[in-house]
Amino acid sequence: MELSLGELAERFGGEIHGDDGCMVHAVATLEQAGPGEISFLANPHYRGQLAGTQASAVILAPRYVGDCPTHALVTENPYAVYARVAQLLYPPRRPAPGVHLSACVEASSVLKEGVSVGAQAVIGAQVRLGRDVRIGPGCVVEDGVEIGAGSVLAANVTVCQGSRIGERALIHPGVVIGADGFGFARDREGWIKIPQLGCVIIGDDVEIGANTTVDRGALGDTVIEDGVKLDNQIQVAHNVHIGAHTAIAGCTGIAGSARIGRRCAIGGGVGILGHLEIADDVQITARTLVTQSITASGSYSSGTPLETTAAWRKNHARMKQLDEMAKRLGELERLVRAKIDEDEQWRTPDE
Amino acid sequence: MELSLGELAERFGGEIHGDDGCMVHAVATLEQAGPGEISFLANPHYRGQLAGTQASAVILAPRYVGDCPTHALVTENPYAVYARVAQLLYPPRRPAPGVHLSACVEASSVLKEGVSVGAQAVIGAQVRLGRDVRIGPGCVVEDGVEIGAGSVLAANVTVCQGSRIGERALIHPGVVIGADGFGFARDREGWIKIPQLGCVIIGDDVEIGANTTVDRGALGDTVIEDGVKLDNQIQVAHNVHIGAHTAIAGCTGIAGSARIGRRCAIGGGVGILGHLEIADDVQITARTLVTQSITASGSYSSGTPLETTAAWRKNHARMKQLDEMAKRLGELERLVRAKIDEDEQWRTPDE
Amino acid sequence: MELSLGELAERFGGEIHGDDGCMVHAVATLEQAGPGEISFLANPHYRGQLAGTQASAVILAPRYVGDCPTHALVTENPYAVYARVAQLLYPPRRPAPGVHLSACVEASSVLKEGVSVGAQAVIGAQVRLGRDVRIGPGCVVEDGVEIGAGSVLAANVTVCQGSRIGERALIHPGVVIGADGFGFARDREGWIKIPQLGCVIIGDDVEIGANTTVDRGALGDTVIEDGVKLDNQIQVAHNVHIGAHTAIAGCTGIAGSARIGRRCAIGGGVGILGHLEIADDVQITARTLVTQSITASGSYSSGTPLETTAAWRKNHARMKQLDEMAKRLGELERLVRAKIDEDEQWRTPDE
Repeated sequence: MELSLGELAERFGGEIHGDDGCMVHAVATLEQAGPGEISFLANPHYRGQLAGTQASAVILAPRYVGDCPTHALVTENPYAVYARVAQLLYPPRRPAPGVHLSACVEASSVLKEGVSVGAQAVIGAQVRLGRDVRIGPGCVVEDGVEIGAGSVLAANVTVCQGSRIGERALIHPGVVIGADGFGFARDREGWIKIPQLGCVIIGDDVEIGANTTVDRGALGDTVIEDGVKLDNQIQVAHNVHIGAHTAIAGCTGIAGSARIGRRCAIGGGVGILGHLEIADDVQITARTLVTQSITASGSYSSGTPLETTAAWRKNHARMKQLDEMAKRLGELERLVRAKIDEDEQWRTPDE
Repeated sequence: MELSLGELAERFGGEIHGDDGCMVHAVATLEQAGPGEISFLANPHYRGQLAGTQASAVILAPRYVGDCPTHALVTENPYAVYARVAQLLYPPRRPAPGVHLSACVEASSVLKEGVSVGAQAVIGAQVRLGRDVRIGPGCVVEDGVEIGAGSVLAANVTVCQGSRIGERALIHPGVVIGADGFGFARDREGWIKIPQLGCVIIGDDVEIGANTTVDRGALGDTVIEDGVKLDNQIQVAHNVHIGAHTAIAGCTGIAGSARIGRRCAIGGGVGILGHLEIADDVQITARTLVTQSITASGSYSSGTPLETTAAWRKNHARMKQLDEMAKRLGELERLVRAKIDEDEQWRTPDE
Repeated sequence: MELSLGELAERFGGEIHGDDGCMVHAVATLEQAGPGEISFLANPHYRGQLAGTQASAVILAPRYVGDCPTHALVTENPYAVYARVAQLLYPPRRPAPGVHLSACVEASSVLKEGVSVGAQAVIGAQVRLGRDVRIGPGCVVEDGVEIGAGSVLAANVTVCQGSRIGERALIHPGVVIGADGFGFARDREGWIKIPQLGCVIIGDDVEIGANTTVDRGALGDTVIEDGVKLDNQIQVAHNVHIGAHTAIAGCTGIAGSARIGRRCAIGGGVGILGHLEIADDVQITARTLVTQSITASGSYSSGTPLETTAAWRKNHARMKQLDEMAKRLGELERLVRAKIDEDEQWRTPDE
């Protein structure tokens, strides 16, 4: 596929600086692009690469037009326009519709037009797959699951019974949706299992990264709203609720019944304790542990600084003395103030 | 299934307050329950929902009987009684015994009565599956594995050669048991692999959450004792030993040869370094890093508080000055005390 | 297989102390070894077990020869020699070459001599598998993947399209290589997917632990150089570059475009933020969060100490006061110094 800069501006907005007939057929980084390729400048970090780029065209913000050595597609959100251009030039490859000979599909399941089921996949009973759903090789879709039109399960995904996934989902390999939550009552003999009777309900346009796990609800459901994006190796416990358009980076763990707002941006390796609430539009930096509800939008953090191990050892030891240090500091302030007052009186006895 | 409150009390203990003929057929939360449903009050957090519940009956502790608007099953451990009631009303669904046509089972393996092997599953040579074992679709059970009566492997589980799993285990999707531990010797050419020659030995009544990994021992075995409950995405390294009835929440990592006691409760995202020991009955709060052995039962923690990113930045910078601050504090104390002593002498020279 | 101590010394170096005709056929720990078994002393922690060992021979460093009650193979690197002896005595079991009847292999793929493809495995189109490659049961190898001679994929591994893996790799169960990286542009409607157009390139002699994920590059590739060893449940984001012979322990997460040097040793549960660089020969202790580039070799750390929960609560509360404490400390120093100066002047007015 080859498109002119003019066609791109017409489809995705932006103004052309240079030749709107400039043709592009591929994307590349500023550094690596060559003739016929379009690049972009979204992260100011790479600004220095603009002057030397060999790209035929660059997508960039108005403030960089002056520095651009070639044709430009100028927009306030170059990263979003780049995303749309790249989607157009690189449409996802889809297998031909149909059920692979080696796949096992229970007769009671309903597969709408355009569905493909990959090699060695397993579709249980009473499953409903919407138009153009793609089930990758080695996936297991258990009884009663519903998956909306256009959704894709990559290879070796497991969707446990009764889970519901909306339209246009993209679920990466190794994801497990709807396994039992971690619920046990303690008694004298040990732990008694709490049957996990809820489901997982996932909205439209959700993406879930490789080996992420989303547990079914204990009573009631685990809910992931529309447009949520989850990275790899995230753990979503039972009865968690994630608001629409929230994005969560890899290795984050969310404990049971936590409720996360809409449009939040949660960094990698964050931990969120159970039964708490996070407001809409909250940002949480990498590796923060959220130990209490967050009721106002804004950015939140916890954690300690990176140091050489030698320096860290010394500071680390002091952390255990912090409360004692605070008390000594308070006592010292009291002493010094008392001393100053006393001297003041002693020096000016009878005025 | 429909049961009277009287029958429940007879099976599981507890006293009835109200009508012992009250019939229930389902469980639900206090907030969502309706007629014919039984609810429970175990977490004081939800106490406020008791007065307005539409449940036909509620399982609760003696101190809440007075506030209960309907029939009650009164017990000192309402959560455990609820667990047993829910298990009775919602028995796990089991597939019919037999080997699915698409599964591959080596002829030298022994499958006892009632075993079911799901679609696309693979059972290697000399495997022994006890009565009523269920192997889910897509599972791979390698050569020489033994699994005790009544155990369930959900979908896409991998059990590597020679691993032994006890009775009534529940292993969730994506779990990997018995992969090689991480062992290498360094020499001039890089890393030389230490063959991982041990196995994984798992006791009875163990549950293991989705995508958790338990590595085989290097020499000697990795051992998980009876009644242990592991949540999702836990990493158990080679030669770890986990004592009976210990429960571990998601995303925890346990390094090689660590030995964890019995009846411990370990929070989510905890890290436990290698070659150390944790006593029985230890609690560890979420995200703690255990850097040394814990020799006495009790609760242990590490970590830093949640703050707004702006406040955190300021405190974070100071953590690198902590040792210096401690020294300055000590010096200041010395100075102030010296000053006070000196003044004392100066003012009362010759008494 | 049975070998004499003399044969071992000849193959792997080291001097014999005692009888070079001493025959061994198995390895075991100092504590558990018996006649015909060879043990090793590499970790000084286990020194106390040397005197009582029943092993026929022990591999150890020169300084322990005097304490050894039996024949010894003496070398400066006993752990590396042990590794080689164990590899010789316990060669990995390899299935017979050939494609299992239940596996699905696209006709356009090329399988060199000695390749084995396990039960229920799926090999896509235009895949190239080198000599003696072993694809375990349940693996999915997507279109266009290349895997070098002698590499092993254990069970249920997923390798996404176009990924390239070198020779002698060992990839453990549940690993996902080449899933999409986590890339989205934000605009008014939510998140727009950035197509992930790069690949994953893995060198020779790489080992990757169970359920680890390595994402494909966004533009350009994710690269893992020769001899890298990754433990279980590690997340490697798009466009990360890991230098040769670096070893990384379990549960570590590496964010996008981070560049890690050669021969680094990175502890468990470490987090590495995106777009930063780590020099060669860097050690990072467990659970450290790397928030900035590391430009010099050496050891680096972050984190807080383990305490009883009661003690931790007190210190934890003070961490939020740290900046204020530092300011109060500075103010107090100013006050005390001013006071001392003032008194000095007041007492010695006119000298």
